[in-house]
Amino acid sequence: MIVILKQNPDRSMVSALIEVFRAQGLSVNLSEGSHTTILGLIGDTSVVDIDAIRANPLVADVRRVSEPYKAANRRFHPADTIVGGPGAEIGQGHFTVIAGPCSVESEQQMVTVANAVKKSGARYLRGGAFKPRTSPYAFQGLHEEGIRLLLEAKRASGLPIVTEIMSETHLDLFADVDVIQVGARNMQNFQLLKELGHSRKPILLKRGLSSTIEELLMSAEYILAGGNPNVILCERGIRTFETATRNTLDVSAVAVLKRQTHLPVIVDPSHSGGVAWLVEPLARAAVAAGADGLIIEVHPSPKTALCDGAQSLDCDQFDELMNGPRGLRARAAFEDKSL
Amino acid sequence: MIVILKQNPDRSMVSALIEVFRAQGLSVNLSEGSHTTILGLIGDTSVVDIDAIRANPLVADVRRVSEPYKAANRRFHPADTIVGGPGAEIGQGHFTVIAGPCSVESEQQMVTVANAVKKSGARYLRGGAFKPRTSPYAFQGLHEEGIRLLLEAKRASGLPIVTEIMSETHLDLFADVDVIQVGARNMQNFQLLKELGHSRKPILLKRGLSSTIEELLMSAEYILAGGNPNVILCERGIRTFETATRNTLDVSAVAVLKRQTHLPVIVDPSHSGGVAWLVEPLARAAVAAGADGLIIEVHPSPKTALCDGAQSLDCDQFDELMNGPRGLRARAAFEDKSL
Amino acid sequence: MIVILKQNPDRSMVSALIEVFRAQGLSVNLSEGSHTTILGLIGDTSVVDIDAIRANPLVADVRRVSEPYKAANRRFHPADTIVGGPGAEIGQGHFTVIAGPCSVESEQQMVTVANAVKKSGARYLRGGAFKPRTSPYAFQGLHEEGIRLLLEAKRASGLPIVTEIMSETHLDLFADVDVIQVGARNMQNFQLLKELGHSRKPILLKRGLSSTIEELLMSAEYILAGGNPNVILCERGIRTFETATRNTLDVSAVAVLKRQTHLPVIVDPSHSGGVAWLVEPLARAAVAAGADGLIIEVHPSPKTALCDGAQSLDCDQFDELMNGPRGLRARAAFEDKSL
Amino acid sequence: MIVILKQNPDRSMVSALIEVFRAQGLSVNLSEGSHTTILGLIGDTSVVDIDAIRANPLVADVRRVSEPYKAANRRFHPADTIVGGPGAEIGQGHFTVIAGPCSVESEQQMVTVANAVKKSGARYLRGGAFKPRTSPYAFQGLHEEGIRLLLEAKRASGLPIVTEIMSETHLDLFADVDVIQVGARNMQNFQLLKELGHSRKPILLKRGLSSTIEELLMSAEYILAGGNPNVILCERGIRTFETATRNTLDVSAVAVLKRQTHLPVIVDPSHSGGVAWLVEPLARAAVAAGADGLIIEVHPSPKTALCDGAQSLDCDQFDELMNGPRGLRARAAFEDKSL
Repeated sequence: MIVILKQNPDRSMVSALIEVFRAQGLSVNLSEGSHTTILGLIGDTSVVDIDAIRANPLVADVRRVSEPYKAANRRFHPADTIVGGPGAEIGQGHFTVIAGPCSVESEQQMVTVANAVKKSGARYLRGGAFKPRTSPYAFQGLHEEGIRLLLEAKRASGLPIVTEIMSETHLDLFADVDVIQVGARNMQNFQLLKELGHSRKPILLKRGLSSTIEELLMSAEYILAGGNPNVILCERGIRTFETATRNTLDVSAVAVLKRQTHLPVIVDPSHSGGVAWLVEPLARAAVAAGADGLIIEVHPSPKTALCDGAQSLDCDQFDELMNGPRGLRARAAFEDKSL
Repeated sequence: MIVILKQNPDRSMVSALIEVFRAQGLSVNLSEGSHTTILGLIGDTSVVDIDAIRANPLVADVRRVSEPYKAANRRFHPADTIVGGPGAEIGQGHFTVIAGPCSVESEQQMVTVANAVKKSGARYLRGGAFKPRTSPYAFQGLHEEGIRLLLEAKRASGLPIVTEIMSETHLDLFADVDVIQVGARNMQNFQLLKELGHSRKPILLKRGLSSTIEELLMSAEYILAGGNPNVILCERGIRTFETATRNTLDVSAVAVLKRQTHLPVIVDPSHSGGVAWLVEPLARAAVAAGADGLIIEVHPSPKTALCDGAQSLDCDQFDELMNGPRGLRARAAFEDKSL
Repeated sequence: MIVILKQNPDRSMVSALIEVFRAQGLSVNLSEGSHTTILGLIGDTSVVDIDAIRANPLVADVRRVSEPYKAANRRFHPADTIVGGPGAEIGQGHFTVIAGPCSVESEQQMVTVANAVKKSGARYLRGGAFKPRTSPYAFQGLHEEGIRLLLEAKRASGLPIVTEIMSETHLDLFADVDVIQVGARNMQNFQLLKELGHSRKPILLKRGLSSTIEELLMSAEYILAGGNPNVILCERGIRTFETATRNTLDVSAVAVLKRQTHLPVIVDPSHSGGVAWLVEPLARAAVAAGADGLIIEVHPSPKTALCDGAQSLDCDQFDELMNGPRGLRARAAFEDKSL
Repeated sequence: MIVILKQNPDRSMVSALIEVFRAQGLSVNLSEGSHTTILGLIGDTSVVDIDAIRANPLVADVRRVSEPYKAANRRFHPADTIVGGPGAEIGQGHFTVIAGPCSVESEQQMVTVANAVKKSGARYLRGGAFKPRTSPYAFQGLHEEGIRLLLEAKRASGLPIVTEIMSETHLDLFADVDVIQVGARNMQNFQLLKELGHSRKPILLKRGLSSTIEELLMSAEYILAGGNPNVILCERGIRTFETATRNTLDVSAVAVLKRQTHLPVIVDPSHSGGVAWLVEPLARAAVAAGADGLIIEVHPSPKTALCDGAQSLDCDQFDELMNGPRGLRARAAFEDKSL
């Protein structure tokens, strides 16, 4: 960590500040230039409170040199983490597709789509029982009934299920859910993250609309620090000035995350683009950039969907995406991954 | 609401679509051009699910013409809403300053700062007991003990208190809190918003880092639709490409909100700029743009603060900001508001 | 085009406004709702001045329904445009790689790199003679001498050359340049675009750092409208809040552009990511998303480069990228394109 | 400047790198930690090429500590710069309003508006003769004839004139123009900036839509380094995700610029908000934040304007803004500035 001091600092105050750092177990290297004095703090700075240093009247600026996350950091855990049980592994050479509708609507819908996506090659079934909607007047999901229908579809198809949690008060309802999703709007709901750290279930953590890659890793760190090592990261598009697409898929984030962390990284091409015709090119780009999997919205009848129908594929489109001549199976094989 | 159809749509399918809209109580106006066919939907479109329409294979695009919020809409409620009891009103000609430290740290800190900011003219005491921190390793607040200390300071100073809630599971602890704050990261924690809609306490709702003005109003709508009319909106800076300031204060949002909604609008100059020397110019700009109040971080000793010290004023700086020759009191008077 | 009127407009003024539109050859469809009155303008609205309409006191808002670009619009020109002569075509099934250093530095550097990239499969040599630099104190390029050295390298290698123009006053110097590049910072230098519209040379038009896809197409329209049909579009990363990468590659823009326009679309993975190790994953993603080519920085000795060395590959890295087991040649073939 | 090395660097290569820096006249301070090795470069680093350092295989990252601009830096030139002649000074206690239409349209329009804005208190007349328009089909300005009409209005009213240049090839036409404006889209047209550095005319430099404050200062540095000390900076709104306003006025930029540079800083509330009703609150906020002046669009008949009518005030609205009970004159006086 680098601490840049204001011009002409009082020397006795600088000495006092250096003592404060030394008392925290850090060693301090002092560089004095004509315009600038700099302190280099060396040691474990992940627990240093950068805000407290900034408030010191001697200090002009503070910059981290090493990453503020530890448990998520590939530097300290070089080997890829694999999340998920046999046949449903995510990470390290496995390429895993999660598919299903935005919202759970009925048993028939769920069983139909579960069987269809399984046949096409998906390894997990997704579906929303609790739906975060911008408007209080929009459909909010079937809640407990939705989870029940997901479990029915799991029984019928054999596919493990992924569904979103919106509050730690609902955790009991998620006892038989295989992967708990934290949505983009809750990526920094720290109370929820802490509770999920006490679980051992795989957590699918979606990047916030305007969260940096580092903030995503810090949110993962909340879960990991709580004792739960099973975190899957998901890039789902960020908010930019561009309005031609619903969000802007940050495909670079996949490559940066794969370098910075050992956790598996998947991509959501459905929410990124916001329209069905963009799912295919964005899914292709994600595979090529090194993603460990995809989460894709599939609905048996998108035009009657209660939510996000515009971005859902129907079952035939999904099968084409998976198994077409240059579909995802062929691409995963080209990248030397198993799907 | 405008529905733009794809080129050369099938006429019988268009007729069927029009019938669907009519069945929802809307009247439909059809415009056919050489390249474009447009449906104008007339009536109460706030309950129409825009996503469902977009998924229809006939539809190229859908655009709202009228605002999706109703209870928060000044069009339907022209008179300004006043939130807060006698002597502590926010809105409609009252200019109200909320001040106090980022985090509650000790009884002495809280009582000192409460008495100081009251003397300088603040009407509410703020202080964080539950702190949303990016890092799990940073100070997270004193929790219950923090609320107890806030209540001590309230008793000692007579100032009503404002503090942030991070989970609906903590609501019992907030029984004696005067104003409950929803932080920027929880602006779209819809489960929390729904619970707060069942309360009658004033809710201070902060704009998310990358939330649009319309999304802020939709989050207010969640609380209002639940039955709680006491919502105060807070602009606290948005995330942009600029890194010279911690966030970018969107001062235009104050003017836009005052036009679009009847709810009071305050500004947080401390989090917007992220450094103490920016508080004064941003506070001045907020008053000039028409804000109904400010929330300002004040700490008796910023350089020892456990959180956000860099952006905190000390008690003397706050007094200067309030009562200096061109301070906030003089400015509020210039704008014909009472402070 | 949709014109949304303010509430309760004066009917005689509405009639007058409708007449104004009819006088421009448009037909007008009037929809009156309880809260909203809407005019649908039907006909060729690309010449309608949206700002002038917005200024009318009756008007609340105006929204385009059809695209404001015509010559660049795939709707009116469905077939792909191919730019470049035999052996160096860009577009429609050809996949073309442009490679070379950020700045032209010496004859030896240019001849070395030209021969190397040609051998690896590049079809064009790039190199900057005029360099747009944020700082006036940074190296600004060799100017005329730089173009002379590019032409030497063209003679030595047989590769056609691509180089950036910074002012229309330099056009004479570009007489023997094969493709003229317009940099991101000049994407809306309309005076330069107009002059390039009078040329017949291929123009490589880079997207501005914060330009929308529609603005990029409107800038292409300037060149096309001037009579020059040879425009290549280039996505090179946009500016967002994320600081982990130099820019954010908008990979969706490739797919959107390929749908909206008939012009070829290439990607610059070097400037997008800003570091050499991101070139490969971003290049892979670009191919997968449907790009017609890439422009990649290659320097014989990146660590001594006078400009942007951090993002340059050396010749061996470039050869590996092109011809490695899952390199760009294999990828282009997988996508059924010739490289 | 801080150079952060990769883990476990080769010691002899580090020594060689240190020698390279010393050869540039810098002194180097080496800090070695368990995970990180850091070099602190001390001396005049404004000429160090940060990209070249980044490309070195030893280097993980480089961060500037001191600002890269010198001539524009208040640290080296503490006193405020005043631009403009007697009666038309901008900066240091003068508050100056520039007003006039977006586009020059006719002699009558210009003379009418010039006399009106002068009477209301404006000190400069603005008007566009060369108009940067996104669409090649939109009105592009009257060019030479426009400048002739501006000069007519200058003669009739006595007001000095401000107008935008779009190419250095037009400089001869600007011989009698008092202040030359560089538009937001040309803020990084470095060839134009260099030419304007050879002039002695005041240059009004507008911030680019997505340019950082530092980039704005670096563009000013191009003009200053060329020998022209007369630069006025203009904040005119930046591009963000928010669509409720045309741009987002970055009011913090005013305060940051006033601290970082000695150059005068004005604000354009017309382009920031994009609608007439936002001009007043944004103008008020700009005065309060410490701006040295404003540039405001005024048109005798906004609804017939050929460009940007929606954001123009008419002459009565402008007079009210200037001279109303809490108008700009009263505000400037409140801030102890002369207008």
